[in-house]
Amino acid sequence: MTEEKKENQKIVNLIIISDSVGDTAFNMVQAGAVQYPDVKFNYRRYPFITNREKLEKVFNEITEFENVLIAFTLIHEDEQLAAIKFAREHNMKYVDLLSGVIENIHSLTGEEPKHEIGAVHHMGQNYFDRISAMEFAVMYDDGKDPKGFLEADVVLLGVSRTSKTPLSLFLANKNLKVANLPLVPQTHIPDEIYKVDPKKIIGLTNDPSVLNEIRRQRMIAYGLNPDTTYSNMDSINAELDAANKLYKKLGCYVINVAHRSIEETAALIMEHLGIDDYAK
Amino acid sequence: MTEEKKENQKIVNLIIISDSVGDTAFNMVQAGAVQYPDVKFNYRRYPFITNREKLEKVFNEITEFENVLIAFTLIHEDEQLAAIKFAREHNMKYVDLLSGVIENIHSLTGEEPKHEIGAVHHMGQNYFDRISAMEFAVMYDDGKDPKGFLEADVVLLGVSRTSKTPLSLFLANKNLKVANLPLVPQTHIPDEIYKVDPKKIIGLTNDPSVLNEIRRQRMIAYGLNPDTTYSNMDSINAELDAANKLYKKLGCYVINVAHRSIEETAALIMEHLGIDDYAK
Repeated sequence: MTEEKKENQKIVNLIIISDSVGDTAFNMVQAGAVQYPDVKFNYRRYPFITNREKLEKVFNEITEFENVLIAFTLIHEDEQLAAIKFAREHNMKYVDLLSGVIENIHSLTGEEPKHEIGAVHHMGQNYFDRISAMEFAVMYDDGKDPKGFLEADVVLLGVSRTSKTPLSLFLANKNLKVANLPLVPQTHIPDEIYKVDPKKIIGLTNDPSVLNEIRRQRMIAYGLNPDTTYSNMDSINAELDAANKLYKKLGCYVINVAHRSIEETAALIMEHLGIDDYAK
Repeated sequence: MTEEKKENQKIVNLIIISDSVGDTAFNMVQAGAVQYPDVKFNYRRYPFITNREKLEKVFNEITEFENVLIAFTLIHEDEQLAAIKFAREHNMKYVDLLSGVIENIHSLTGEEPKHEIGAVHHMGQNYFDRISAMEFAVMYDDGKDPKGFLEADVVLLGVSRTSKTPLSLFLANKNLKVANLPLVPQTHIPDEIYKVDPKKIIGLTNDPSVLNEIRRQRMIAYGLNPDTTYSNMDSINAELDAANKLYKKLGCYVINVAHRSIEETAALIMEHLGIDDYAK
């Protein structure tokens, strides 16, 4: 940890215990922790805690900690109970993130859960489709091969610094085949783009002032004069205008990414495509 | 939905309501649902439900549904309570995934949560580092440019079909700069590889039988004779032997990906690098 503790700053030790990878538990805990910007959080994650012996080792490691919140996703009931017992005996807080979902499904259906660890990571067809989608995104990133546009589920067009690559990868992780094309001044638009169903095309744009600042920073990072053509407001406006004209011509959906995270932009795209229910 | 409902199969409608993207809630619900392989689940996700009006619209849409589990991650207490009230009045099950974390942190610290929606997606330095890491992974995928090996946090070496690309992207999403190199017979190993700290190098391998089956399937998909050199067991064994010799020479950490998902392999790598607590 490089950050120093501020005076009187409260500390919470967040212990994440999972019998699988623990990513979802980590993300959920983080979503709660960000609501407390003045608290210093120490995260400690214990993945693959698949039996009682491993769980006891975790307990040994954390037994002396203070201000502890234990968040766990454990499939087996005896391990859930062991975690609760340990937390209570050591005056720690705990939250069981997964049992509520499992128990409610049991109530609705009367079915018994199979208590299988790591079941979500089973490598079914869906899993291999996702891997293919990621390979597709890398292969057809940056307009590398125009035939990707015709095979893609989504085609992203965008001026520079509109996060085309990470957005493509994020959508690939949702099993979508994504190709992207950067729009730089005098870009030749491949004929394939006009053959794509406009519903599948997303036009990404940005605020001129945001682009200007990003480009100035980049010039400075390169040790160059920040007031070059690349960061000039007139050229930025011309570039954005040209992109907007193309989007209009194509009749595609346009998203301004200026104040949106990748996750938010991706959610808008999936909503637009009507696949927000992960039916694909 | 292309899948038909089996006779007497129980159905559960999983409604995910989030004031942000809803990915974490979706993943948590899915982790519970996979414990019931015989139940048919219909997922419906409502992201960006940031105020009471939007929440009421969701209620209107789902009010006639039966066998409902509502899972929500809502920051504002009045919306949490509205969701609970709605669920109770309509005889639906519900699970509040986020409040437990937020309330426990309050108990530990006495601090008040700031009740800010979407705080986890704020675009701080960490966010931009992650985008850079993704761009790095795409740029240095497939050994495209050997200088990437020297700048990378992790270098993945692997025979074909060991998921190098998706694994690189998954690790990039954890803010790690990853370069990878495919090991095919007679690969020239770039000098840069020998200059990398061996602790940063991961050697990926696979079971010969798994590789053989994958390659046979691929040949069949291409309409080719599956018993070509590419799928021949002798050549697979020779390839794996050559890779293992290189791994031994480098003294790197070796992972057999045969029965591991990307997430599991990534967790092993992060554990090996000592960054499982997301300290980076």
